[in-house]
Amino acid sequence: MTKKYVYSFREGNAQMRNLLGGKGANLAEMVKIGLPVPMGFTITTEACLNYYEEGEKISEDILSQIFQALDDLEKEMGKKLGDNEDPLLVSVRSGAVISMPGMMDTILNLGLNDESVKGLAAKTGNERFAYDSYRRFIQMFGDVVMEVEHDKFESIINEVKQKKGITQDTEMDADGWKEVIELYKEKIKDETGRKFPQDPKEQLLMAVEAVFKSWNNQRAKVYRRINKIPDDLGTAVNVQTMVFGNKGDDSGTGVAFTRNPSTGEKEVYGEFLMNAQGEDVVAGIRTPQSIKQLKDIMPDVYEQFINVCKLLEKHYRDMQDIEFTIENGKLFMLQTRSGKRTAQAAVKIAVDMVKEGLINKDEAILRVPAGQVETLLHRRIDPNADVKPIAKGLPASPGAASGHVVFDPDEAEAMGNEGQRVILVRTETTPDDIHGIVAAQGVLTSRGGMTSHAAVVARGMGKPCVSGCEAVKIDYEKGEFTVGQLVVKKGDVISIDGSTGEVMIGEVPMIDPELSDEFNKILSWADEIRKLKVRANADTPHDAKVALEFGAEGIGLCRTEHMFMAQDRLPIVQQMIMAETKEEREEALAKLLPIQQEDFEGIFEVMEGLPVTVRLLDPPLHEFLPNPEELIVEIMELKAKGCSKELQAKQEMLKKVRALREMNPMLGLRGCRLGLLYPEIYVMQVKAILKAACNLTKKGIKVIPEIEIPLVNHELELKTLREIVEKTAEEVFEEEGTKVHYFIGTMIELPRACLTAEEIANFADFFSFGTNDLTQTTFGFSRDDAEGKILPHYVEQKILSDSPFIVLDRKGVGSLMKMATDKGRSVKPDLLIGICGEHGGEPSSVEFCHMIGLDFVSCSPFRVPIARLAAAQAKINHK
Amino acid sequence: MTKKYVYSFREGNAQMRNLLGGKGANLAEMVKIGLPVPMGFTITTEACLNYYEEGEKISEDILSQIFQALDDLEKEMGKKLGDNEDPLLVSVRSGAVISMPGMMDTILNLGLNDESVKGLAAKTGNERFAYDSYRRFIQMFGDVVMEVEHDKFESIINEVKQKKGITQDTEMDADGWKEVIELYKEKIKDETGRKFPQDPKEQLLMAVEAVFKSWNNQRAKVYRRINKIPDDLGTAVNVQTMVFGNKGDDSGTGVAFTRNPSTGEKEVYGEFLMNAQGEDVVAGIRTPQSIKQLKDIMPDVYEQFINVCKLLEKHYRDMQDIEFTIENGKLFMLQTRSGKRTAQAAVKIAVDMVKEGLINKDEAILRVPAGQVETLLHRRIDPNADVKPIAKGLPASPGAASGHVVFDPDEAEAMGNEGQRVILVRTETTPDDIHGIVAAQGVLTSRGGMTSHAAVVARGMGKPCVSGCEAVKIDYEKGEFTVGQLVVKKGDVISIDGSTGEVMIGEVPMIDPELSDEFNKILSWADEIRKLKVRANADTPHDAKVALEFGAEGIGLCRTEHMFMAQDRLPIVQQMIMAETKEEREEALAKLLPIQQEDFEGIFEVMEGLPVTVRLLDPPLHEFLPNPEELIVEIMELKAKGCSKELQAKQEMLKKVRALREMNPMLGLRGCRLGLLYPEIYVMQVKAILKAACNLTKKGIKVIPEIEIPLVNHELELKTLREIVEKTAEEVFEEEGTKVHYFIGTMIELPRACLTAEEIANFADFFSFGTNDLTQTTFGFSRDDAEGKILPHYVEQKILSDSPFIVLDRKGVGSLMKMATDKGRSVKPDLLIGICGEHGGEPSSVEFCHMIGLDFVSCSPFRVPIARLAAAQAKINHK
Repeated sequence: MTKKYVYSFREGNAQMRNLLGGKGANLAEMVKIGLPVPMGFTITTEACLNYYEEGEKISEDILSQIFQALDDLEKEMGKKLGDNEDPLLVSVRSGAVISMPGMMDTILNLGLNDESVKGLAAKTGNERFAYDSYRRFIQMFGDVVMEVEHDKFESIINEVKQKKGITQDTEMDADGWKEVIELYKEKIKDETGRKFPQDPKEQLLMAVEAVFKSWNNQRAKVYRRINKIPDDLGTAVNVQTMVFGNKGDDSGTGVAFTRNPSTGEKEVYGEFLMNAQGEDVVAGIRTPQSIKQLKDIMPDVYEQFINVCKLLEKHYRDMQDIEFTIENGKLFMLQTRSGKRTAQAAVKIAVDMVKEGLINKDEAILRVPAGQVETLLHRRIDPNADVKPIAKGLPASPGAASGHVVFDPDEAEAMGNEGQRVILVRTETTPDDIHGIVAAQGVLTSRGGMTSHAAVVARGMGKPCVSGCEAVKIDYEKGEFTVGQLVVKKGDVISIDGSTGEVMIGEVPMIDPELSDEFNKILSWADEIRKLKVRANADTPHDAKVALEFGAEGIGLCRTEHMFMAQDRLPIVQQMIMAETKEEREEALAKLLPIQQEDFEGIFEVMEGLPVTVRLLDPPLHEFLPNPEELIVEIMELKAKGCSKELQAKQEMLKKVRALREMNPMLGLRGCRLGLLYPEIYVMQVKAILKAACNLTKKGIKVIPEIEIPLVNHELELKTLREIVEKTAEEVFEEEGTKVHYFIGTMIELPRACLTAEEIANFADFFSFGTNDLTQTTFGFSRDDAEGKILPHYVEQKILSDSPFIVLDRKGVGSLMKMATDKGRSVKPDLLIGICGEHGGEPSSVEFCHMIGLDFVSCSPFRVPIARLAAAQAKINHK
Repeated sequence: MTKKYVYSFREGNAQMRNLLGGKGANLAEMVKIGLPVPMGFTITTEACLNYYEEGEKISEDILSQIFQALDDLEKEMGKKLGDNEDPLLVSVRSGAVISMPGMMDTILNLGLNDESVKGLAAKTGNERFAYDSYRRFIQMFGDVVMEVEHDKFESIINEVKQKKGITQDTEMDADGWKEVIELYKEKIKDETGRKFPQDPKEQLLMAVEAVFKSWNNQRAKVYRRINKIPDDLGTAVNVQTMVFGNKGDDSGTGVAFTRNPSTGEKEVYGEFLMNAQGEDVVAGIRTPQSIKQLKDIMPDVYEQFINVCKLLEKHYRDMQDIEFTIENGKLFMLQTRSGKRTAQAAVKIAVDMVKEGLINKDEAILRVPAGQVETLLHRRIDPNADVKPIAKGLPASPGAASGHVVFDPDEAEAMGNEGQRVILVRTETTPDDIHGIVAAQGVLTSRGGMTSHAAVVARGMGKPCVSGCEAVKIDYEKGEFTVGQLVVKKGDVISIDGSTGEVMIGEVPMIDPELSDEFNKILSWADEIRKLKVRANADTPHDAKVALEFGAEGIGLCRTEHMFMAQDRLPIVQQMIMAETKEEREEALAKLLPIQQEDFEGIFEVMEGLPVTVRLLDPPLHEFLPNPEELIVEIMELKAKGCSKELQAKQEMLKKVRALREMNPMLGLRGCRLGLLYPEIYVMQVKAILKAACNLTKKGIKVIPEIEIPLVNHELELKTLREIVEKTAEEVFEEEGTKVHYFIGTMIELPRACLTAEEIANFADFFSFGTNDLTQTTFGFSRDDAEGKILPHYVEQKILSDSPFIVLDRKGVGSLMKMATDKGRSVKPDLLIGICGEHGGEPSSVEFCHMIGLDFVSCSPFRVPIARLAAAQAKINHK
């Protein structure tokens, strides 16, 4: 038996996604459950891979299977492809395993030629329709298969329209289209040296090959890179009997979601265009009508459609994204798939479906992509602010953003890379604009609906989008848009609110989000299930409060250096650093002590009864001093002016800055190395922590201080500092006349600490992975340096799938973490182990932490909900 | 049975070193083989440890064992300790497991008191001797046991001498010493509030306790730190019947080596002083006579002594370091141990002893400490240079050095730490001066012999030393020394030649050493045995030649960046870096190509038939541009002058420097990251390498190029660059019309590369560990930054035993290397693996490389012999 490369829609089902692609598998599934689907067949992804293996050639075996399937289809439909009297017409569409909407090519109306078009005209009694269909086919085929530029066809239409004195395509009559068709064919001949093929089977094979090829076009490659889709999956090809939404006023086409993909409301949500083909809706060229209006236009079809939606949801147990066509009052289903949705919708749909008994809590938790939840936690416009919208479009992707107006996606990318915040403003967007959307804070389009390209892409990226804002008139050439009399120029700042569709001039006040009831419900389910504790990184009482509100179960990292940076402390800190002797240094430290103590009291009070990990001073001291180049300029200016006193002070500062300067400060005098060379600094900090704890304890407030030593490499570093901390603690307890139970632990953030964790554990009550530093040293990547040029290049070239500073590198950094965890627990089975790098709030990294058995993750307060959810998902996925 | 804490010399042997200390074990061994040894007993190291465990208290059990041993000794000698008529006198000496010469305390003549001194006087008929002995005892006991400053005693002697109108100790008569003794006892009473003890048993116990305590005195601690001796060994105490070298002109004392410890010549070599105690020789206060002169003075004793030396060498199968005393014409052996020796002597003695049939080749190889061999490879004064010595002392430690004259050891240390080269000039040195010797390039003393403190310490450290240079008159106060009319001030530069004893003004021309025949013999034996290949790191044809001469079997690291730094290339390299486009960059690279090609041709030609690993460009590009701070100053000056054209060029340079500047260049855009972002640079280099190889191949010269990609983290980095190298190679071979067999491999120098070595190995023909970078990232230590402040502090505090940049850290870095080796070989069993960091020439690191199964080590040319030897030692020690 040779391999089966072609499946009829009657042969497949939803489980065969890897072979048939998402679209093909779901078409087969819909056939299976009895829905009205135009019949057809699917050429498998394996055929596509075979095509590339054979050096871009469709093998004989596959060819014969395609013709056999065509033969079967023709028999079933009682028509022949391209027949002169009653032609069978088909669409040829790509269908990848993982949906890549709009990324690959589609050909409609295939089978038409100079003869069969007459048959179609006769059979439908609609000559204009037939020739319009034919010219659409030639245009698509010419563009996609024969690679003649799209614009060349558009200008032919414009020529003919001009000649005829008309402006709209709809005004064109059959003769007009016939003229266009002749010009199209000539143009193709001129451009390619080949005639437009009249043989329908030749058309079919050329189209199939074009779809195979489209797997590797530039757009598709970019999309896969952005969406982390492997390059070696291939695409299936669906060959399906054509139905026509453009057969007149009893025809139409549309797309719909079984629930609102933006809010999650339980209502069929979608849009359609009467007398149009599907591409017209998706491309956003005409602004479509709401699905609800279909009820008035074709009540029976509407009712049937609503029932299909219910059936599909029940069958798939998930919200569906549907494409349909109405041909002469008859409903056909062209596609169904799990609908993309905003985080807000994902949450509401998951909670609702549990209530409806469709899914259980575990499934509900898995239905909310933890990474996407971040969008729920983004800022929105302050409802109390006096906001004056200048225009209102469709609320296409929730959230709010401000930025400089940019019209060109390349420019948006360039400015974004420079760190500027931009809003991309376009008439409509196409897949070619993706890089601009990636770089922008948000997108504003003047045309297109909720399912237009801009809307879909922005939702996928969690960026605000206002679409179809028709009041906005864009003039690309002048580099401006107008709303009535108002002119907004490139570079001006605007704000958009993707939740309301409003557009404002300038920046507007925004506020932090609260969590919805549904989200709290999902999170409470997650809390019941997860094993990992979730703490927050917080340096101030305010941050600690926010963290508590988001459900943090402690503070996993309180960085004391931020306290040093504050305006009122920096001069004292500088005095401490400039000190020439230990005595001078201790004098400055004595001034800092009460201030630090107050900091800690504030945080401990908020976190009453919960653990608070305080990391002792970590950064290199020169971070607290001025930049040497600026000092040099000041000194040279002072010299010119002759200010000798100030000059001397600056020169001394420069001397110190230079003495402290390091070639690679990340690998220099910082962390516990500071504590070992200048123990008095750590002594002051320990005093401040424990005096604060004693004070609150006296007031009856329970404090659980965890003192953390950073950047430990060797057990003896920790042993030495542990002795200093313990000695200081004894002194404080003596002085305060009370005792507090406290812990001493260490950051594990250097490879050597991981490799010798069984030794370090002897002196540690807890470990906390500092995965930022651990990633830096494991990879030899300075984050500050690598994120600018190197990592973007690496991700683009697919050397790395993600920046390891965003998604934890399991093979390298992760294997060190596992080693450290196992080694640490080999000597202390109950050793408390957590993570406090930024990875602690990133879902894949949280999953890994669960897998290797950590006790907690700690992340920024706003990411605490993400971590809670991700931790539960990890537990469910690794049961 | 209680533990045995005290052993008679009749009970021990040389194998009991750990318990009895080196001195005690060897005294027992000498008794065993029938040599004349004053009888005594040893209190074990375990007793010392017990003393510390008990909170610095000698336990009852140990006390009673000591008294029992004393009782036995008294019976054997037929005398009683401190007897009034014929007192038994003893010495009490420390004796550590690992020799720490001069570091701990010794007490002689113990047992004398106001009564027994009379007995001694009567018995010896030498009242002066008796009272001199007594005052010496009080002085030592007062100093060491009762902690009265040495100077206080010296000034009493001076007082009495002044009163008596004499200048030399030898002129003092018995009454004088009696007066001194009374004053000593008063001084002790005054200073300590305690009387000098008259009870001999009390004296003994106090002395034993003082020796125990001396294990932890400051000098001993520093010595152990420098010599990596563990702190928890403890010292034994030897109590031995006194014999007197100061009993008159038929008495004397001396030290000797059975062969020359400086050259290795087979001749008894040593010094003695007539009518003196041992301390007088070692302290270098009087300049002693050569051992050969003893032949004339006491021919019988001399002959007996020579026979003892022969017997000891035969018995121990090694060169011995002996202490002896002649009492009234009778020879006594006080100590024997394996003699310290220069590397040159170690080599010659080892080779000679193989010839003599005393030891085998393996033993010979182990007898030459690989680390010490470096001194043989140090520079010496050019024999053809016109050198005018100003003075000549003893050639106390071979090698030559130049440096600024410094008199104070603290100052020497301070200047040494600042990177200055200094020569420490002292009348004589004491253990308190060690830090100064450590910091100096060499030592010059005006007093003391070949076995003086300065000489012994300098030889141990492999530093040049000229001792006993009496022409040098030092005036510490004026900060100068004079030689005749010549005045040399502090800070002036001098040179010394420790092989000849000559002292010169200013710097003198020096040359690199050649290898002696004996050394070549040892190395040839090492080559027969070792498994590790030894290559050299060499960047020029000259270096390659030197490497070949030293026995390198290939080049393990040829750094191309040094070629970029040369005067004639730097402007082109800067042009390449300043290029705004790929085209501009390629233009500059095209100019570099022929230059690089010439570089490689030169090296390949020298290394004909041997592998040459060429590393592609590694350092960050800004290393080739000027310093930004200097640029700013230049710019501000140009602005002031109004030179607009030059100003613009400098401003542009500054812009580029700033654009390229990185926070942590060690972790930034360097290594293969450069090759991935700017492939044209690597393409140029690969072309240069392979064109050079093709050219030589055409001339019939065999070339084995190994192209090495630095700083690889991830298999895909290597895969991508391997493809580029292979494509470039094909182009070169096409163009040149010939092919060369070449290899592509990678540096393994990042933790992630080690952790994923089984993936990286798929694209590598060889691995080479870059342990400098691997140490930097594993520890998170920037070498540039850590070696200044952090590592010295860590070594001082014993957090680390060595800088990990000097001695490979086996636990951290080493475990990553082992992992990488095992993982790499798991996919490619024959994978060639080496090391090319500086560790490749450090003996302990070489041993580790042998243990984990590497194929080669590569080090600087001068270290190649060390590596050859260390590799053989590793093989022998791990058979």
